[in-house]
Amino acid sequence: MNINQLVKDKKLKNDDIVSFTARVRTNRAGKSVGFLVVNDGSTILDLQIVYKDSLKNFAELSQLRISSVININGKILLTPEKEQKLEVQASEIEILSSASLDYPLQKKEHSLEFLREISHLRPRTKTFQSIFKIRSSAAFAIHKFFQEDGFVYVNSPIITENDAEGAGESFIVTTLDNGDYPKDFFGKKACLTVSGQLNAEAYAQAFKKVYTFGPTFRAENSNTSKHAAEFWMIEPEVAFEDLKYNIDLIENMVKYVINYIFEVCKEELEFCDSNLENGLIDKLNLVRNSNFEKITYTEAIKILQDAVKNNHEFEESDIKFGLDLGTEHERFICEKHFKRPIFITDYPKEIKAFYMKLNPDDKTVAATDLLVPGIGELVGGSQREDDFDKLSKRCKDLGIDTDSLSWYNDLRKYGYYKSAGFGLGFERLIMYITGAGNIRDVIPFPRTPKNLLF
Amino acid sequence: MNINQLVKDKKLKNDDIVSFTARVRTNRAGKSVGFLVVNDGSTILDLQIVYKDSLKNFAELSQLRISSVININGKILLTPEKEQKLEVQASEIEILSSASLDYPLQKKEHSLEFLREISHLRPRTKTFQSIFKIRSSAAFAIHKFFQEDGFVYVNSPIITENDAEGAGESFIVTTLDNGDYPKDFFGKKACLTVSGQLNAEAYAQAFKKVYTFGPTFRAENSNTSKHAAEFWMIEPEVAFEDLKYNIDLIENMVKYVINYIFEVCKEELEFCDSNLENGLIDKLNLVRNSNFEKITYTEAIKILQDAVKNNHEFEESDIKFGLDLGTEHERFICEKHFKRPIFITDYPKEIKAFYMKLNPDDKTVAATDLLVPGIGELVGGSQREDDFDKLSKRCKDLGIDTDSLSWYNDLRKYGYYKSAGFGLGFERLIMYITGAGNIRDVIPFPRTPKNLLF
Repeated sequence: MNINQLVKDKKLKNDDIVSFTARVRTNRAGKSVGFLVVNDGSTILDLQIVYKDSLKNFAELSQLRISSVININGKILLTPEKEQKLEVQASEIEILSSASLDYPLQKKEHSLEFLREISHLRPRTKTFQSIFKIRSSAAFAIHKFFQEDGFVYVNSPIITENDAEGAGESFIVTTLDNGDYPKDFFGKKACLTVSGQLNAEAYAQAFKKVYTFGPTFRAENSNTSKHAAEFWMIEPEVAFEDLKYNIDLIENMVKYVINYIFEVCKEELEFCDSNLENGLIDKLNLVRNSNFEKITYTEAIKILQDAVKNNHEFEESDIKFGLDLGTEHERFICEKHFKRPIFITDYPKEIKAFYMKLNPDDKTVAATDLLVPGIGELVGGSQREDDFDKLSKRCKDLGIDTDSLSWYNDLRKYGYYKSAGFGLGFERLIMYITGAGNIRDVIPFPRTPKNLLF
Repeated sequence: MNINQLVKDKKLKNDDIVSFTARVRTNRAGKSVGFLVVNDGSTILDLQIVYKDSLKNFAELSQLRISSVININGKILLTPEKEQKLEVQASEIEILSSASLDYPLQKKEHSLEFLREISHLRPRTKTFQSIFKIRSSAAFAIHKFFQEDGFVYVNSPIITENDAEGAGESFIVTTLDNGDYPKDFFGKKACLTVSGQLNAEAYAQAFKKVYTFGPTFRAENSNTSKHAAEFWMIEPEVAFEDLKYNIDLIENMVKYVINYIFEVCKEELEFCDSNLENGLIDKLNLVRNSNFEKITYTEAIKILQDAVKNNHEFEESDIKFGLDLGTEHERFICEKHFKRPIFITDYPKEIKAFYMKLNPDDKTVAATDLLVPGIGELVGGSQREDDFDKLSKRCKDLGIDTDSLSWYNDLRKYGYYKSAGFGLGFERLIMYITGAGNIRDVIPFPRTPKNLLF
């Protein structure tokens, strides 16, 4: 028996007998009666326990400290007039584990910064119970969405010699401390993956539809609210399909995940709406109920240029073809101009990755970013270059070493017809769905520069 | 439209019009008629395409090479007398991408060793389509099992300063090549995780039921068929529950996953039974239909001693309390003696990890291993030591540095009542379900000593 079952059981009657184990959130004791608020992690909802001095250990119970674990035997008292629809009148309470007095989460409010220092205890708060329940459910929704659509889950390698974007900033994996890579475990320099996409493409040519969902890493020395050294990515890839298919897939996936969270995390979403982002539920309703707009990058530039003419102030106001859109531009387009999620397509090749398919105009690539109100870019995807010669030329033009990539380029020689996919930063999605403002608060044990606890 | 839908559609009639994209497995052309066998990855089942010289590109088609990608328009011809119940008579075939002549997977059989060298292409074979479809479905079954039972999925950290077992052999994560860890990214020495259990325990005290499912790493320099440097682990943890609950959970999970594979991967299992392990399906049926036996370690020692008396030969035949059972002993117990899966419980504390709960006899711990016919140990679990003083003493006795573990031991001070969990090596499970004999064949891009390709 757990609290989630109890609070959601519509058939419970007064005097029904219950027995369960839970943790003490608060304890308020008078002379002859005391009130415990307890939680067992099965839901963020708490349950009030009333205990009276008829219990033989009343004196001990009245001193019971926060976070102690107890077993309660008692009877249901329905309280339909209160916010919590029932409470339990204890007939017996066994103290299973007493928490010590220095338990850091006493009743008062704590800052998110303080809670990060006790990442092993913060999931006991309602805020983090909500965030991590939603994270868990969203992860499952993603697996469910893809599996129901016939996708095969591929575990792309974590240790790799590739650096998908050519962007550097990889962590080195070694068993030595002297950089003598030929003598190292793998006999060469090894890194932590920054993306599983290239591996996923190989598998898409075998299974048609695949997705990865695993950790990725960036050794970027920046302390912002959006960057972590370790985060999870979802990277679907579909063979024989183009950018249009990819765009529909992204829209369907985002809506599916949000709908699933509305279905299974109602209380948690309401808690986040009240405590992390006012208007969160309205924002998510807008996303799941609207048709996502589609415009080209060139059209987006025009919209931004018009905005500048109409005296809208951007930090970067030199708007012209070739500009790598900033968050301010992305948010203007989806929040102010269209007021809903929007796909921008066909970006200049210069600001996108080497593997994206060159459009016939020779200037743009078949890429898309999904922008959503509140944060800007949520998903980035593209159709891949399927022509071996064009891909090789692009690598050469960009100075990309093709030695370790030869297997990837070779895929184009062995029957490769269209392939499209996207990357979704899982933490970015969870921040969006929970309203959490800092990536450190949606990762159980976050890793950032100079921060490696637990 | 994909091949999986076509071959499973019971309503298809002769002359129904179909259109789909697929890859050529074989091409056999006569003077006026040719036969293509094609696959699109949606199933391991192939489809035969008949093309005649009435097609304008017949000459080109008759030269079409293996692995080329084509689009087929044609009509269904039902062939109920053949193994494959239908074929397609092509009215038009468009060649979308021609494979080059040096495509390594020509029609002849290839060794698994050779196929490992082309990990980017081997998923196009039926063997690896079967293995990796089963891997994907088993991963989903695991998520489904735990989510349906109210477990919260926790992403334990990949980069860590902890070494859960104290067993060493961790990979170092660095941005330097000189071992100057105070100046490194995290300001101290960082490793790749060998287990997420300690972190999961912290979350179990908050959510009651949690599980991890992520990559783990061992820098063990051994080239065996069972060891990889990178593999995935599932580590559930449940608060307020004991070893008995844990044992039931393991049995339920193993049966659930196998049942799910029988449900959704029928063709793939049959292929594995015929090509990887004869009797595979019978073996799995035994597991899913039997009640798992339970004996203590002490009883197991007695059984092995009796076997030695009866002249059974073990490589290690000095059987006595304290022996760390080898695979030969485990397999004897479950295959010869009980002929079904078996849990062994209550191992000597000396051969188990520091965090396992000491039994009242002061000699054994509340640990269990699940042994299954065919491989021996599949799962290992335990109830955790919940007494702060006993845990601290155990760390001290074993010389474990408790500085970086203080947060873990401290959990016992802040209300900690029973916690039990287990670890399942995902690849070990996939080897067991598919009959694959080498761990390198159940990991898309395996990582082993001196081997870092793709």
